[in-house]
Amino acid sequence: MKNIQGYVAEHKQRFQNELIELLKMPSVSADPAFKHDVLRTADAVKYSLEKAGCDHVEICQTDGYPIVYGEKMIDENLPTILVYGHYDVQPADPIELWSSPPFEPVIHKTDIHPEGAIFARGACDDKGQMYMHVKAMEFMTSTNQLPCNVKFMIEGEEEVGSVNLATFVKNNHEKLKNDVILISDTGMIAKDVPSITTGLRGLSYVEVEVTGPNRDLHSGLYGGAVANPINILTKMIASLHDENNHITIPGFYDKVEELSKEERAEMAKAPFSLDAYKKSLDIEAVYGEAGYTTNERNSIRPTLDVNGIWGGYTGEGAKTVIASKAFAKISMRLVPHQEWEEITELFKKHFESMAPKGVTVLVKPHHGGQGYVTPIDSLGYQAASQAYEESFGKKPIPQRSGGSIPIVSLFEQELKSKTILMGFGLDSDAIHSPNEHFGIWNYLKGIETIPLFYKYFTELSKKA
Amino acid sequence: MKNIQGYVAEHKQRFQNELIELLKMPSVSADPAFKHDVLRTADAVKYSLEKAGCDHVEICQTDGYPIVYGEKMIDENLPTILVYGHYDVQPADPIELWSSPPFEPVIHKTDIHPEGAIFARGACDDKGQMYMHVKAMEFMTSTNQLPCNVKFMIEGEEEVGSVNLATFVKNNHEKLKNDVILISDTGMIAKDVPSITTGLRGLSYVEVEVTGPNRDLHSGLYGGAVANPINILTKMIASLHDENNHITIPGFYDKVEELSKEERAEMAKAPFSLDAYKKSLDIEAVYGEAGYTTNERNSIRPTLDVNGIWGGYTGEGAKTVIASKAFAKISMRLVPHQEWEEITELFKKHFESMAPKGVTVLVKPHHGGQGYVTPIDSLGYQAASQAYEESFGKKPIPQRSGGSIPIVSLFEQELKSKTILMGFGLDSDAIHSPNEHFGIWNYLKGIETIPLFYKYFTELSKKA
Repeated sequence: MKNIQGYVAEHKQRFQNELIELLKMPSVSADPAFKHDVLRTADAVKYSLEKAGCDHVEICQTDGYPIVYGEKMIDENLPTILVYGHYDVQPADPIELWSSPPFEPVIHKTDIHPEGAIFARGACDDKGQMYMHVKAMEFMTSTNQLPCNVKFMIEGEEEVGSVNLATFVKNNHEKLKNDVILISDTGMIAKDVPSITTGLRGLSYVEVEVTGPNRDLHSGLYGGAVANPINILTKMIASLHDENNHITIPGFYDKVEELSKEERAEMAKAPFSLDAYKKSLDIEAVYGEAGYTTNERNSIRPTLDVNGIWGGYTGEGAKTVIASKAFAKISMRLVPHQEWEEITELFKKHFESMAPKGVTVLVKPHHGGQGYVTPIDSLGYQAASQAYEESFGKKPIPQRSGGSIPIVSLFEQELKSKTILMGFGLDSDAIHSPNEHFGIWNYLKGIETIPLFYKYFTELSKKA
Repeated sequence: MKNIQGYVAEHKQRFQNELIELLKMPSVSADPAFKHDVLRTADAVKYSLEKAGCDHVEICQTDGYPIVYGEKMIDENLPTILVYGHYDVQPADPIELWSSPPFEPVIHKTDIHPEGAIFARGACDDKGQMYMHVKAMEFMTSTNQLPCNVKFMIEGEEEVGSVNLATFVKNNHEKLKNDVILISDTGMIAKDVPSITTGLRGLSYVEVEVTGPNRDLHSGLYGGAVANPINILTKMIASLHDENNHITIPGFYDKVEELSKEERAEMAKAPFSLDAYKKSLDIEAVYGEAGYTTNERNSIRPTLDVNGIWGGYTGEGAKTVIASKAFAKISMRLVPHQEWEEITELFKKHFESMAPKGVTVLVKPHHGGQGYVTPIDSLGYQAASQAYEESFGKKPIPQRSGGSIPIVSLFEQELKSKTILMGFGLDSDAIHSPNEHFGIWNYLKGIETIPLFYKYFTELSKKA
């Protein structure tokens, strides 16, 4: 593509200022107090898409916050790219831990970002990364280099579980029809190590309740004679892992995708310092499933973690009580091909069957989502890889993320197309935490890389 | 003794009214708001002892609430009985669960108490049972039948751990010198089954803290790769019992007193319905150490129970977090000869040594107390047994209680004398709970039985 670096260099100041204006709007979807700001932000996104050259932009109402839809269809024989992003942000609390107000963006230099980074809630997740696509669109339309059709779907409820997006997608197959979905809502390994997220883990989240005697009992008079729900719960949870930290739920691993030696070798190329990792967490040693590295444990392997546990007396001092009930919240991260509803069922069946006489056990499924994987031989991945190679001067590393983006599997299921996760943020950008920021270098690099994806995806599609 | 039934019958109405007056005073030692009432109650007890015929009564100040001391020494060659009781009561909350105000005593008939029971906080624990001794004293002095010396030590901090009693006892060996200690602060098996508590369990109470990463982590990005403090805590707690529910702490059972076949056979005579027990707790089955009955498990065997556990996200809905810390409160009930400080040390050593790399474990000892046992061939037990046999018309059953009264072992250690636990309350009297009550029949039966203990103890002492 012609003169993309030049264009970015010329307009970088404006690109920063426009993003900063967007970041000033506290579009916190979780807190009704910000409703007006969330709606204002949707309008701002609509306006920015119009200015970027979309022919048709609309605010699509939902039962919650609206979805901003925009498109530019230049030739139906050309491929269509659907860009997904979100304009809502995480709550800013704990506010007191921010070194500058979360919705008054400031630019600071950091060790990792000597060119400066924009500090504000949403700077990286996802206003900054979403806006890269708007600015890339501007470049392509204003220089007449848009090589294919493009559609934008920018939602306002990602941080609260995309509650209304599924319905919107199910009801708009034709409108959202596309050949590939492009999302920048993940990260890259390091500034000098471009990477593309090729896999996400699925999720099954449950709550368990163990009930023993019909009331709290005096542990002196009853201790040792009745099943103590807390002791039983710890026994049951402990039994979910064996001595190698394999999960013991029957059938749990049946559909787990085993990666080839080659794929694992490819993954292992990602730079990683175990010492730095341990140091950053103040832990003496890592811990996990035997036979896998840390980076494999948190990405290509399924896991089971207790996210919360409670029961009995938890106040100051001592109370000699045997609680009637004990509770835990447990989540399982799943890998591609594991069906989350099926895993939830397997857990429920196994956990309830473990209950000894003397207690009753209830497993309440919370929610979940499918894992996802993009084959590195797919058109989309190849195009992305070439785009990174041109803009970064080196091939990107395919990486599996341990996190979950349930909507990605929804897209594949409903729209029958693959998603490419081109993330430009860094782990250190503190998304969801105080002092979230986004490197200006990363921001501009994204704007520079995205049009190249359009170019190569269109070329490869024609060849295909 | 002459005419004891007659005396009780003649004065029963007054005995009830006097107790009711005492119960109207909300002597809640745990709540400073009641300070004035607690002090008023001490005065009332002092007055009642004077009226009952003590020669010398005094209010002994401590760093907390005072101890009421009274005595009548008739002949230093005769044995001396030290009566211990307490005039403070448990808090009344939850108030809303009381069918009548806790400090406005009322008399109701119940299935178990067709003669009526006094409903009020402290009716049984311990004002009612303590006052039996005052009225028994009145009978003996007013009919010139006091056969020996008597001392009363009635404290006001039993419900808050007798914090200042130990110092008082240590500093007053001579004043408190006695041949046997008599306490009515326990229960009996049933109205028609008199019993004497011959054993109490000791206690070791600890709090444990497991620390993993230096902050809460995203369970997607870190799940499976680092030790999750909650999962580790459940593993550690679960490992404290083996498949037979024996406690696995090395050395834990070394000093446990094993009862003889005969003693266990004696215990087994206590009427007990497992079905009724399970029904009252709504449990399908009991649970505990292999090789022991329910009544053995909760009395002559040591136990380990989690009294509280907490960590991670415990609010509504779901949060995919790996907590930095997890906590539990754990108590062990101990049996005679187990040293509670030693057991606390064994627990701490074992639990901390179990910690896998990747977490740090801290065990904080809370408090504890020694177990206690009265041999059934002791003078005191024999005298009590004869007293019951005369007033109830049947031999009492020696019973081990699962609970702990730490001061009893303190008395033995400091005053070198055995304690006889003559309890007249019933399990169903709801001590420490709403609608606490004490059967009038039990109250009067206690007043009738106590002087017989004085009589037989004096006789047996002379023979000895």
